[in-house]
Amino acid sequence: MKKFLNDPVNFVNEMLEGIYRAHPEVTYVADDKRCMVAANRKPGKVGIATGGGSGHLPLFLGYVGDGMLDGVAVGGVFQSPSAEQMYQVTKAIDQGAGVLYIYGNYTGDIINFDMAAELADLDGIQVKQVVGNDDVASSVVGEEHKRRGVAGIFFVYKAAGAAAAEGASLDEVTRLADKARLRTRTMGVALSSCVVPEIGHATFSIGEDEMEIGMGIHGEPGISRKKLAPADAVVDEMMDRIFAEQDYKSGDEVAVLINGLGGTPLEELYILFRRVSLLLEERGVKTRHVWIGEFATSMEMAGASISILHLDAELDRLIGAAGNTPFFKHIPA
Amino acid sequence: MKKFLNDPVNFVNEMLEGIYRAHPEVTYVADDKRCMVAANRKPGKVGIATGGGSGHLPLFLGYVGDGMLDGVAVGGVFQSPSAEQMYQVTKAIDQGAGVLYIYGNYTGDIINFDMAAELADLDGIQVKQVVGNDDVASSVVGEEHKRRGVAGIFFVYKAAGAAAAEGASLDEVTRLADKARLRTRTMGVALSSCVVPEIGHATFSIGEDEMEIGMGIHGEPGISRKKLAPADAVVDEMMDRIFAEQDYKSGDEVAVLINGLGGTPLEELYILFRRVSLLLEERGVKTRHVWIGEFATSMEMAGASISILHLDAELDRLIGAAGNTPFFKHIPA
Repeated sequence: MKKFLNDPVNFVNEMLEGIYRAHPEVTYVADDKRCMVAANRKPGKVGIATGGGSGHLPLFLGYVGDGMLDGVAVGGVFQSPSAEQMYQVTKAIDQGAGVLYIYGNYTGDIINFDMAAELADLDGIQVKQVVGNDDVASSVVGEEHKRRGVAGIFFVYKAAGAAAAEGASLDEVTRLADKARLRTRTMGVALSSCVVPEIGHATFSIGEDEMEIGMGIHGEPGISRKKLAPADAVVDEMMDRIFAEQDYKSGDEVAVLINGLGGTPLEELYILFRRVSLLLEERGVKTRHVWIGEFATSMEMAGASISILHLDAELDRLIGAAGNTPFFKHIPA
Repeated sequence: MKKFLNDPVNFVNEMLEGIYRAHPEVTYVADDKRCMVAANRKPGKVGIATGGGSGHLPLFLGYVGDGMLDGVAVGGVFQSPSAEQMYQVTKAIDQGAGVLYIYGNYTGDIINFDMAAELADLDGIQVKQVVGNDDVASSVVGEEHKRRGVAGIFFVYKAAGAAAAEGASLDEVTRLADKARLRTRTMGVALSSCVVPEIGHATFSIGEDEMEIGMGIHGEPGISRKKLAPADAVVDEMMDRIFAEQDYKSGDEVAVLINGLGGTPLEELYILFRRVSLLLEERGVKTRHVWIGEFATSMEMAGASISILHLDAELDRLIGAAGNTPFFKHIPA
């Protein structure tokens, strides 16, 4: 295992200590570093919280800040935080306007966040939930509720965060988050495995010339394993799946996220984007917003995902709004 | 070779096409995509240009924009751009106030940039040069002029870019860039090799349990190869070298850059920063600015570097000033 770490047992806590030392704009509650909240919270604003396993930076911890989220609870690597942790974050960020949970569709997270919402309800805090399920490869059309949430959750955060910053109500923030969720599709491809520190070896093995299309960000099986193809052919296969689910007409507009899974150089992500951009252009679809980099990783996994949000006017405005968190800054043109 | 690419011959040009498609705030001149300039250039401002080999994103292409650089020329992977390319960029960004070149201390770059400066001089464009040499491991004290330039050049860009944006003269921007250069030290450590696309195999081999301290960002030999130690011990060894060259007193202030070389997860960079921060705190040194992420990479190389800029009042102000480029955004608190 080639990692910069001390005792693997301390991986998450030492990473968190590094974050708090680097970024005074975030802090923690309940004497628990895994319960992160914005240091300054705006009175009266709808609170937005997320959570999930560690090992996906900048997901989940990276998006607490202006125009984005208010709090996050994380568990160990690839493990859900507890209901109690999510409840503590909820209490801390509620400003009387209620709290929206936005997280990925994983069993452990659902159980714990449902329980946290019940605990909050006993305190009179209204909680709504939007569960990201953008990963096209993880279930067929008609069974979208079985799909995993992956990098496309970034668009849900962005839309909801901008709406909450504008002063929208909990119902309205929830409506917009859900709309962003419904209009986002992601396809991923993995070239190598990650290594969970406390396990110390690769989560899965994959041949030196192989790729796995549709693999999840914890190494969940994809839809096909085959010989690594040229970049354009890989993008074509991924975009075919996305185009099949989103009915584009010439003149439609999108936001694009090319996400590196941790071990893939930025140069390669731009080579992937080049092809995505060409395919959208061919259909007359206009790319209004682009982010290329690491937004939801699986530690050192080599691979990438493509997320496309099919915009409408209100989503376009929210996605383009300012954002300022330790790991994400957007300055509108 | 596990990379997302088409024909390796087109690696750089397709990457550049992706960048221009994603970021309309940059464009190119001389009908050559490798000659990048800001789309909007501020009249009367001192121009700042950099350049070097491809394969280091976000270095060098990523820092063209407000409060940073005006132009950049890149060559093939790990190859210098030509004198002609650097000259074309120089002509495009000169606004009558002269141009400062900031680049790393590599023979090919020095030869070509010197020649570009001579060509510009024939056109009546005044050019000054600051050559980054922050890599402590690449030569002993007393022979700093032999040292390579690595990630610490980011601080030189930031100081010079902020000064130029404030309207400083060429002499003044050069003085401040040079001061940032003289006060910056970097130490790197590599855990794995990169793969140059047109070569197709690892540049060097390194054992599954080994690290190389002081390795350069093209795989140049470091100062010691040994068994991978715990993260804190690795940081201690690197920081000992930096502390030996910078005379810190309690109350002194620094900017810190923890840079991933391409394949190292962000979590691990925060674990490294935690220890750096503790060591600085022990000496009573105040960390005023921190950046943690990928700023100067070697494609998929696993590893990291630590750069420390010993601040004074004017550098503190410039380092903290706003910046907005496709790959780097800084919003002052």
